[in-house]
Amino acid sequence: MAKELKNLTKRSDNYSKWYNELVVKADLAEQADVRGCMIIKPYGYAIWEKLQHELDKQFKKTGVQNAYFPLLIPKSFFGREAEHVEGFAKECAVVTHYRLKVDEESQQIVVDPAAKLEEEYVIRPTSETIVWNSFKNWIQSYRDLPVLVNQWCNVMRWEMRTRLFLRTAEFLWQEGHTAHATREEAEDRAKLMLKVYADFVEQFMAIPVVQGVKSETERFAGALDTYTIEAIMQDGKALQSGTSHFLGQNFGKAFDVQFVDKDNQMQYAWATSWGVSTRLMGALIMTHSDDNGLVLPPRLAPIQVVIVPIYKTDDDLELIRQKISPIIERLEGMNISVKFDDDDKRRPGFKFAEYELKGIPVRLALGARDLENNTIEIMRRDTLEKETIGFDGICEHIASLLSDIQTNIFKKAKTYLDSHIYECDNYDEFKERIQEGGFFLCPWDGTPETESRIKEETQATIRCIPYGVSQENLGLDMVSGKPAKYRALIARSY
Amino acid sequence: MAKELKNLTKRSDNYSKWYNELVVKADLAEQADVRGCMIIKPYGYAIWEKLQHELDKQFKKTGVQNAYFPLLIPKSFFGREAEHVEGFAKECAVVTHYRLKVDEESQQIVVDPAAKLEEEYVIRPTSETIVWNSFKNWIQSYRDLPVLVNQWCNVMRWEMRTRLFLRTAEFLWQEGHTAHATREEAEDRAKLMLKVYADFVEQFMAIPVVQGVKSETERFAGALDTYTIEAIMQDGKALQSGTSHFLGQNFGKAFDVQFVDKDNQMQYAWATSWGVSTRLMGALIMTHSDDNGLVLPPRLAPIQVVIVPIYKTDDDLELIRQKISPIIERLEGMNISVKFDDDDKRRPGFKFAEYELKGIPVRLALGARDLENNTIEIMRRDTLEKETIGFDGICEHIASLLSDIQTNIFKKAKTYLDSHIYECDNYDEFKERIQEGGFFLCPWDGTPETESRIKEETQATIRCIPYGVSQENLGLDMVSGKPAKYRALIARSY
Repeated sequence: MAKELKNLTKRSDNYSKWYNELVVKADLAEQADVRGCMIIKPYGYAIWEKLQHELDKQFKKTGVQNAYFPLLIPKSFFGREAEHVEGFAKECAVVTHYRLKVDEESQQIVVDPAAKLEEEYVIRPTSETIVWNSFKNWIQSYRDLPVLVNQWCNVMRWEMRTRLFLRTAEFLWQEGHTAHATREEAEDRAKLMLKVYADFVEQFMAIPVVQGVKSETERFAGALDTYTIEAIMQDGKALQSGTSHFLGQNFGKAFDVQFVDKDNQMQYAWATSWGVSTRLMGALIMTHSDDNGLVLPPRLAPIQVVIVPIYKTDDDLELIRQKISPIIERLEGMNISVKFDDDDKRRPGFKFAEYELKGIPVRLALGARDLENNTIEIMRRDTLEKETIGFDGICEHIASLLSDIQTNIFKKAKTYLDSHIYECDNYDEFKERIQEGGFFLCPWDGTPETESRIKEETQATIRCIPYGVSQENLGLDMVSGKPAKYRALIARSY
Repeated sequence: MAKELKNLTKRSDNYSKWYNELVVKADLAEQADVRGCMIIKPYGYAIWEKLQHELDKQFKKTGVQNAYFPLLIPKSFFGREAEHVEGFAKECAVVTHYRLKVDEESQQIVVDPAAKLEEEYVIRPTSETIVWNSFKNWIQSYRDLPVLVNQWCNVMRWEMRTRLFLRTAEFLWQEGHTAHATREEAEDRAKLMLKVYADFVEQFMAIPVVQGVKSETERFAGALDTYTIEAIMQDGKALQSGTSHFLGQNFGKAFDVQFVDKDNQMQYAWATSWGVSTRLMGALIMTHSDDNGLVLPPRLAPIQVVIVPIYKTDDDLELIRQKISPIIERLEGMNISVKFDDDDKRRPGFKFAEYELKGIPVRLALGARDLENNTIEIMRRDTLEKETIGFDGICEHIASLLSDIQTNIFKKAKTYLDSHIYECDNYDEFKERIQEGGFFLCPWDGTPETESRIKEETQATIRCIPYGVSQENLGLDMVSGKPAKYRALIARSY
């Protein structure tokens, strides 16, 4: 067994430590020497790229086009929408100068005081303000609507406590921004994008989610409604995995985006915004992985199949290569990504451990005896089951195995989710059981007071009012004893 | 003719104005309300995306992997490599604070003085320092080498005079960074990446380039050698389109990146870096476009074929649609991107002008009479030639036309380049002829003094010592009269 694998903390010992170690040991990311920022390493970035590529295709299918808006936002733009600035002002990186110089006395590099900006800029924590400032020029008539744009970019929020992928000062994300002629169309778009997220996360990432709408307290700063997908991690905590916001006319009014409607009347445009970020990498890791390392869904694995030759001499290796080359070619022709690892500096055992750690879905191993018998050993990463198979129909077997792994890890995660959603209408019971994690469906009176009491006393929050859960016969709020308005999903969260 | 097209300035009247107008009218980009920054609009971004996608494939073929490093660079990192900080300090956006607040007196949003950073950060103008600070952790042994990474990201240089795509404070680019065990391997990599750039720019962008090596004065800050590709614009000015740097051990030493070599000796790693940016969009526009608007190479055109139906009634449109649908399907099956524009709010004449402006390579138009005759009108954007053809073999005809346009616009640009490279060894003649633009091959004594005199007196610079040009029988430097060391390529540039 490889050294780094042996040292991986067990999930049951310390889930949080297991996560932190796994991210680093599997070469996904590392802490940068910049406060709260991370370096996404090639293997981690390759997963992000696949995710990005697939999601981008889904956006485009709904008519969205990509664009790019500036990194820096003038401070004054920020103040135009009151709730928005309230939500983001406390965690903004601020650019105040535009030059460094060598200090004559100390000979050190210093900020040149003469190069102070008249108006400071904020590094975007999100781009509604700068986008809507542009929409003002793009939108004059109902004929210019809808506008459906998205950007893939970096954003910055000066978080105090950070963790790789889950919460970093700088992170990568996509932010979609749309403008519409009617309230209904904007609301439909916000809901549509939530559906795009839910489908993508379930079908590609194999992560089951609960969809729903946020409470007022948990809404995006400046939104009238925030729709969310919530996933459950293996420790029973929720991870908000994507949000879509119906912003009403707040930004239309703040940036004076008016258009002439079909009846020749001036109207303010209706807005949505929606985003997912590198946080999804955290969800991916914490949903499927185990004490041996990552488990990746085949649809997002940068390498889907790894082949490890077991040989003593160069001649052995050559025979193996001859046997396996046509299979690699055929797999690649089937759009399956394959790595043949003939690196002679490392032993097969080391390689096996490493590919387990890195979550490669299917591993093939092939030695001299296999050549004689015309067989090959095949292992699936999700169950770690091995079998020895013949070469007939091997490519089809691998393709079907990949598809089976994709289905299997989703099912496993779905079973976990379903068995960790509890109905609960007794606050004492809730306070005890929430210690163990899980998603709780509880009657809620709809007041922020009750919501904040739950948060203070249990560190759990209302994740959403979930779709597909009956909102009838609610009974009494478990905290206040008043008649409940909703059946809310409550959990501790990342 | 559409209003906006009519108003496009002619190149012969004012080339610079033509460019600025075209970028905006063709919906490629616009000035942001942020000093020196641009908004890349969906149509412009779609071209950038195609370019990015193709180039990324070429990088990966050479073994490069993508990664992501932080946006912010601690000020102290910057000072470690003396030439590097010298080159970039004067144009850096500096982050000094991490919070805004509401001022109690004025009720305005202000920078919170209590949230001042101990050490300031610079928004990356380029990432050598932060990358090499990480490489220190990645590289211990020759077995860890080479490291070949690239990132697609935004960077910022506080330029005083900016122009859309050509020079903006923030721009998008890719920056590759590699570390090697030997000097030779690093030099080969720097040259290889220049070749990747040259091949891509010629084959996909249809822009012919001159390859060569920069003079010492024009080198990247911190490089031992900078390789460059230089393209010629229609006004005879050069546009530096991509550079690749051999950085020696400068960053290895500045960030103490040492490794144990095969003989068990400690060595500093050897470095390269290389980049192209959204500047390439400027090169694309200024190489091929004409007084009617953009001309796009088919291999980078987001829409390769547009079909405009000409009809009076909905029934007519339906007949056209029936006729054209199978053709669209077949073209898409051949990986040709097609737009069928049945928008009834705009007349065909308006559409024709717009698609000319936007540079769609092939336009089809189809009306009632065409249906009767079983013909269709086809126009190629590069030459504006129209012909009427039958439906037999139409898809193959379109595919071959696209390939022909790609070849033709490259040939045209190559003819222009070749006929604008002049040998010149007389400085008086040079000073006169440089007014008209063009690339001049001149004997140079190799001194920075001569180089700077040429720049002061003519605004022309040494673009490179070109490859493929004889460096023998050089004669005397045209300025100093001393024996020449090189035949240099001299031009005014963007």
